[in-house]
Amino acid sequence: MQIILLSGGSGKRLWPLSNNTRSKQFLKLLPAGGDATESMVQRVVRQIRDAQLTDSIIVATGANQKDIISNQLGGSVEVVSEPSRRDTFPAIALASMYIADKKQCSSSEVVVVMPCDPFTEVGYFQTIEKMASEVEHGKADLILMGIKPTYPSTKYGYVVPSQQHNDGIAFSVERFTEKPDEKRAAELISQNAFWNGGVFAFRLGYMTDIVKQQLDVNSIIECYDRYAELPKISFDYEVVEKASSIVVVPFSGLWKDLGTWDSLSGEIKKESIGNVVMGDNNSGTLVINELNIPILCEGAKDMIIAADPDGILVCSKEHSEGIKSLVEQVKSRPMYEERRWGDYKVLDHTLADNGYESLTKQLHLKPGCKISYQLHHCREEVWSFIEGEGIIKLDGEETSVKAGQVVRIKKEQLHGLKAITDLRLIEVQLGTNLVEEDIVRVELDW
Amino acid sequence: MQIILLSGGSGKRLWPLSNNTRSKQFLKLLPAGGDATESMVQRVVRQIRDAQLTDSIIVATGANQKDIISNQLGGSVEVVSEPSRRDTFPAIALASMYIADKKQCSSSEVVVVMPCDPFTEVGYFQTIEKMASEVEHGKADLILMGIKPTYPSTKYGYVVPSQQHNDGIAFSVERFTEKPDEKRAAELISQNAFWNGGVFAFRLGYMTDIVKQQLDVNSIIECYDRYAELPKISFDYEVVEKASSIVVVPFSGLWKDLGTWDSLSGEIKKESIGNVVMGDNNSGTLVINELNIPILCEGAKDMIIAADPDGILVCSKEHSEGIKSLVEQVKSRPMYEERRWGDYKVLDHTLADNGYESLTKQLHLKPGCKISYQLHHCREEVWSFIEGEGIIKLDGEETSVKAGQVVRIKKEQLHGLKAITDLRLIEVQLGTNLVEEDIVRVELDW
Repeated sequence: MQIILLSGGSGKRLWPLSNNTRSKQFLKLLPAGGDATESMVQRVVRQIRDAQLTDSIIVATGANQKDIISNQLGGSVEVVSEPSRRDTFPAIALASMYIADKKQCSSSEVVVVMPCDPFTEVGYFQTIEKMASEVEHGKADLILMGIKPTYPSTKYGYVVPSQQHNDGIAFSVERFTEKPDEKRAAELISQNAFWNGGVFAFRLGYMTDIVKQQLDVNSIIECYDRYAELPKISFDYEVVEKASSIVVVPFSGLWKDLGTWDSLSGEIKKESIGNVVMGDNNSGTLVINELNIPILCEGAKDMIIAADPDGILVCSKEHSEGIKSLVEQVKSRPMYEERRWGDYKVLDHTLADNGYESLTKQLHLKPGCKISYQLHHCREEVWSFIEGEGIIKLDGEETSVKAGQVVRIKKEQLHGLKAITDLRLIEVQLGTNLVEEDIVRVELDW
Repeated sequence: MQIILLSGGSGKRLWPLSNNTRSKQFLKLLPAGGDATESMVQRVVRQIRDAQLTDSIIVATGANQKDIISNQLGGSVEVVSEPSRRDTFPAIALASMYIADKKQCSSSEVVVVMPCDPFTEVGYFQTIEKMASEVEHGKADLILMGIKPTYPSTKYGYVVPSQQHNDGIAFSVERFTEKPDEKRAAELISQNAFWNGGVFAFRLGYMTDIVKQQLDVNSIIECYDRYAELPKISFDYEVVEKASSIVVVPFSGLWKDLGTWDSLSGEIKKESIGNVVMGDNNSGTLVINELNIPILCEGAKDMIIAADPDGILVCSKEHSEGIKSLVEQVKSRPMYEERRWGDYKVLDHTLADNGYESLTKQLHLKPGCKISYQLHHCREEVWSFIEGEGIIKLDGEETSVKAGQVVRIKKEQLHGLKAITDLRLIEVQLGTNLVEEDIVRVELDW
């Protein structure tokens, strides 16, 4: 079995911890035994392995999430990154072509597509196993998971089943209803409708045939190059709702979208995380501090307080679902990012009246990891090494560096950095027009 | 008339904005017309000038507040800083010796001692004028201000008057009662007792005679050198309660101690200060943000949110009076300080496992101001200039510096910096044992 994990989203509802590169599925906040924590995507991958579904997990995502996925999941998954953000149909099409071409899987291989962020239990993965078995037994071309609703939600699509099959597992599908109002949702539930949980199983050939009807491509390279020609449409609209041979397999256990602070805080079994002093008069309040300055919280009732280099949120749980529009009013660049080689946080960004800019970061490289050999046109950099040992490559020459050393990199000067131990440095960028894009990467691996 | 303004306190109740060097009286939060704000001490000095009481203001304070006072009040006041923190009697003694010796005032000069942080109105300063007049007319050796109580406070000392004098202004003093319980306070108020507001008037000779009884000194230098021999006792205990010739002059107008977030927020006529996005569902809440990252606040009721480089407070107004004990649990160095030459904030402090440390700051020097010519034994510094122009002195040689330049200062290397325009730089300190005290100042002015 091949699993395609869909990883997208910008996660404004979990601001400031989530941003354009750190979507909600990457927040390491869920309890993982003892003091350890894991992110939603780490949890789902662990659960797939625990259920022994497969070792072949392909994460379909955008280029901006590639680094954080390899940072959190390492080499345990394959990543197929879209050349541009379109929608779930093109993303699943690309991942399917990857499985067919790059992995040379046969067209009869069972493929399961699933989101990377539901908070679920073991029964969910047992249901996926049943879905795969339904595909193998030829019960239908497309099998989808129906989640038993727990309330008349207006956020989900509904699947109305007709009669149950003889195997006691699958139901035929009568029709789909997208995000109904609450009254209509209650009616649908009384008709035994399920939520569409975004989990689909099919044979690889089923999907590659659909792709080839849209676009005459035979290789992953071709599909990648002509990606912009694929329609910008969801898998639900383009495939599921048009399918003639489709059944739904129900799941009725724990299934939650931890997409708001209110819902997420319910699963974090702590009162505070990070450098926090809590008074005796707080109740129902969660404080998460990823800054290196302390938070003191007293007398807060049913609130979420979350701080990281992007900003500080102080919000009642009651209003936490509605912060998205407020977050859009916040103007700032991402101040914390996880990268392939480690992570960085922005310490300071100063813009002088004459357009001269400085950006001060603390960078952390993991042992053995490296920053590409690169140059910048518009900025100089000053690296002050504050912890660990590494190798620096400057104009072709490699020398060792360690804590206490200072290196100045001029405009147009080629430079790369490799960590031997955990390596930390303060980087001061000086110049005009300090944008991320001012990088010419000469070698990614050197 | 000479006014001695007493400036002390560590201000843990207004954490994080106040700390050991920035006591509550230095927070620039009070409305001062238009968008302008002023600190409590700036307000009191302005009010003294508006009332045309005197141009001679001497601030008696500790060495740690000397820089912030000159930053906020410039050359408009004189500063007498104690060699060590003792109590109000030695502080007033030192300031009185300064007036007698350094300013060569006669022993008949009227001296008024007052705290620097009451939130008052014009009548308070008119009362001070009456007190000075009482001294001049020889009504008593010592005149103190009695504040008409507004509630049975347990925080203040009480002055119980006997009969009023013929002038209709002063009352004789029957006795003093220190911080009573609430029941006793209510009884005192029914006996027309006043709060002791800490405002005293006397002739200079009255105080210098008392000092000389304690310590055989004739000059400010002697008094400074032998400061530790003066008893560590308050002016109230040592002078006021022993005085044989004393009267109290009442004041019954606005007089508030803005020493807690609850009381201070009542005088700040804004909902938010700094980079803050407020939702529509907040009420009775004040957000003050001195960080350069945004705060988003929604659904908060009757709360104080205050953030600066020292930390972040989220507290109900109801519990804001009790945060002092929580603040004592917060462990961190001061992250923002105002200095003689400008101000700095700490951006990052990293301590590696092997004891190697780095401290990253953004420094701001005001035009014309300079950092002393100095050296360090245990640390190197890297200065990346990000805004403005200045002069750097390195090993005796002066050269100009401007935004975009980088200067590395080695251990034991003499260095000084002078701003021509507003000058900003990122300073990365690298070394072991990065303490403020690792400075050898060779020249303060160069």
